[in-house]
Amino acid sequence: MSKYLLPRLNALDPYVPGEQPQDRRYVKLNTNESPFPPSPRVLAALDAQTVGSLNLYPDPLARTLRETIAAEYGLSSENVFVGNGSDEVLGFAFMAYADETRGATIPDVSYGFYRVYAQLYRVTPTIVPLNADFSMPVEGFLAQQQLVALANPNAPTSLALGLAQLERIIAGNANSVVLIDEAYIDFGGETCLPLLAKYPNLLIVRTYSKSRSLAGGRLGYALASPEIIDDLHRVKNSFHPYSINTLTMLAGIEAMRDHAYFDTCVSAICAQREQSKQALRALGFRVLDSATNFLFAAPPNMDGKAYYEKLKARGILVRYLSQPTLLDYVRISVGSAAQMQALLDATTAILQEDTP
Amino acid sequence: MSKYLLPRLNALDPYVPGEQPQDRRYVKLNTNESPFPPSPRVLAALDAQTVGSLNLYPDPLARTLRETIAAEYGLSSENVFVGNGSDEVLGFAFMAYADETRGATIPDVSYGFYRVYAQLYRVTPTIVPLNADFSMPVEGFLAQQQLVALANPNAPTSLALGLAQLERIIAGNANSVVLIDEAYIDFGGETCLPLLAKYPNLLIVRTYSKSRSLAGGRLGYALASPEIIDDLHRVKNSFHPYSINTLTMLAGIEAMRDHAYFDTCVSAICAQREQSKQALRALGFRVLDSATNFLFAAPPNMDGKAYYEKLKARGILVRYLSQPTLLDYVRISVGSAAQMQALLDATTAILQEDTP
Repeated sequence: MSKYLLPRLNALDPYVPGEQPQDRRYVKLNTNESPFPPSPRVLAALDAQTVGSLNLYPDPLARTLRETIAAEYGLSSENVFVGNGSDEVLGFAFMAYADETRGATIPDVSYGFYRVYAQLYRVTPTIVPLNADFSMPVEGFLAQQQLVALANPNAPTSLALGLAQLERIIAGNANSVVLIDEAYIDFGGETCLPLLAKYPNLLIVRTYSKSRSLAGGRLGYALASPEIIDDLHRVKNSFHPYSINTLTMLAGIEAMRDHAYFDTCVSAICAQREQSKQALRALGFRVLDSATNFLFAAPPNMDGKAYYEKLKARGILVRYLSQPTLLDYVRISVGSAAQMQALLDATTAILQEDTP
Repeated sequence: MSKYLLPRLNALDPYVPGEQPQDRRYVKLNTNESPFPPSPRVLAALDAQTVGSLNLYPDPLARTLRETIAAEYGLSSENVFVGNGSDEVLGFAFMAYADETRGATIPDVSYGFYRVYAQLYRVTPTIVPLNADFSMPVEGFLAQQQLVALANPNAPTSLALGLAQLERIIAGNANSVVLIDEAYIDFGGETCLPLLAKYPNLLIVRTYSKSRSLAGGRLGYALASPEIIDDLHRVKNSFHPYSINTLTMLAGIEAMRDHAYFDTCVSAICAQREQSKQALRALGFRVLDSATNFLFAAPPNMDGKAYYEKLKARGILVRYLSQPTLLDYVRISVGSAAQMQALLDATTAILQEDTP
């Protein structure tokens, strides 16, 4: 850090992404990527002509991409904002709606970046603890008079709130934006989409990184009232008007249009999730019922970090959690059948090793 | 705009990117893109295997790309930061070094985004007017005790400061960061690179959008002391750790490595620039000597906006400038020989039309 950095930013505690070690090849089950490549239509779109035209700026309004996403959900492109990953969308939303004068209400346990944005933008967040069973306490999010942000399904718990409960939160904050981060919604839970027409304060954020197999392409989007989308464009155009590159834009269009491929991948991941959940439970794990592409799982007779370390030694990466209420658990991304079998084999060996 | 937007952001006056009209095909000389496609090595790198692995997150540290850039300039990767276009790099730099407690000094006439970042981050900028001949008054940038940001060569004037003058500014602000935006440096002027080892407060920002033919790929970078690079990483990791997508990262590596192609393109653009400058002068234009890939040119007998409109009616886009001191001028990107011939033909016709 330099002596020039604003003192306020000295204290920043940046988000720590899941580890991406370069030392050896791991079975990567730590960052909730899809085990499947993107739609073959993505490859077809990124042809020589497209690459050859990279000397030209992309459309700063990302019109075709936004129209494609809008059509998918029965909306107008005025309801759609696209960002360089959903992180950027979340970052712009926090920038637009929260600062030291107007705070943000977030769950104690959720996507770690909400706290980081709060720090960056001088927000003193209102932190709502989860219930003991890791469910989201709806009452804690009502009548906040400030930005409310939560993930549904939530991470790393993998649990979803029902639509009626979500509507209570959205209706209960008519004077402020309620941001529902639906990064994992394609794998389970109920989307807030049907509420969009009714609630101008609802902001849904989604990502191509999970169900659309495009984590490497960096693409996220927001669905909301035209007024909220306009806010996000104002902030974006004050920061980075050309935030989506040409290749990612085309990839996003094709990945959204290929319904058959999307359905196949999501179904396979959900089926694998259920199978792995049962297998882990059979080995003595506590595993929550997951509405996502990961499992929130507590191994028997050891804490999450110990299990993580033993798996890593065997070439398998999962994510352990350092928050006090989560120490028993790890977050395991649902990978391919082969990857999940490798996890189970390693786990069986680890449990046997530990038995005297 | 929604009623939820922070009142402070209501007043934002976002940057207006060069127009990207969809109504017809134009000869686009308005956004300083390269007329040449990116290096053929870029296309070769974006193969089926790469696209097929987009389900995985990119390296958040962009190690190989940063090492490639560092090697190009005889630096270490600790001296290199990469961003989603130089706009993002500039945005992070303003976020790191300026706010309502510590301002920023910028030229009256330069890249328009500096003022926008100032607004976004609550900075009251110190604005230094250019000299009457559009040159940069060095004295105005000394002993500022706050962020100093300027483009060299400058836009839209196309003029460069000499290295001795730049060093006066950098040495004259030992207690604050001096950001030199070298977006156009490959086309002329003297880079501040030789000063990097001497001045820990020097921050050089560059882009792949001009000389590397990758405006559509969105890639910019910073060269600076490890401490400044660390600041930029702190801010980035509090906003968007995976800001560079996998495809752009690979494109950036190959475009940097292909020296022969780079030299060929830059030489061709500079030769075309000189030829077009002479031709416009022969038609009665005032044209400044350009160290960039554009010409700052004042047509005879009409203002910049009138000339812009007449060109647009003939299918050619240039950029007119609305700042009071620039009304006589337009900014014309140096395109291909055919594009520049089209510009000259249209201009000749426009001038004849206007002669009674």
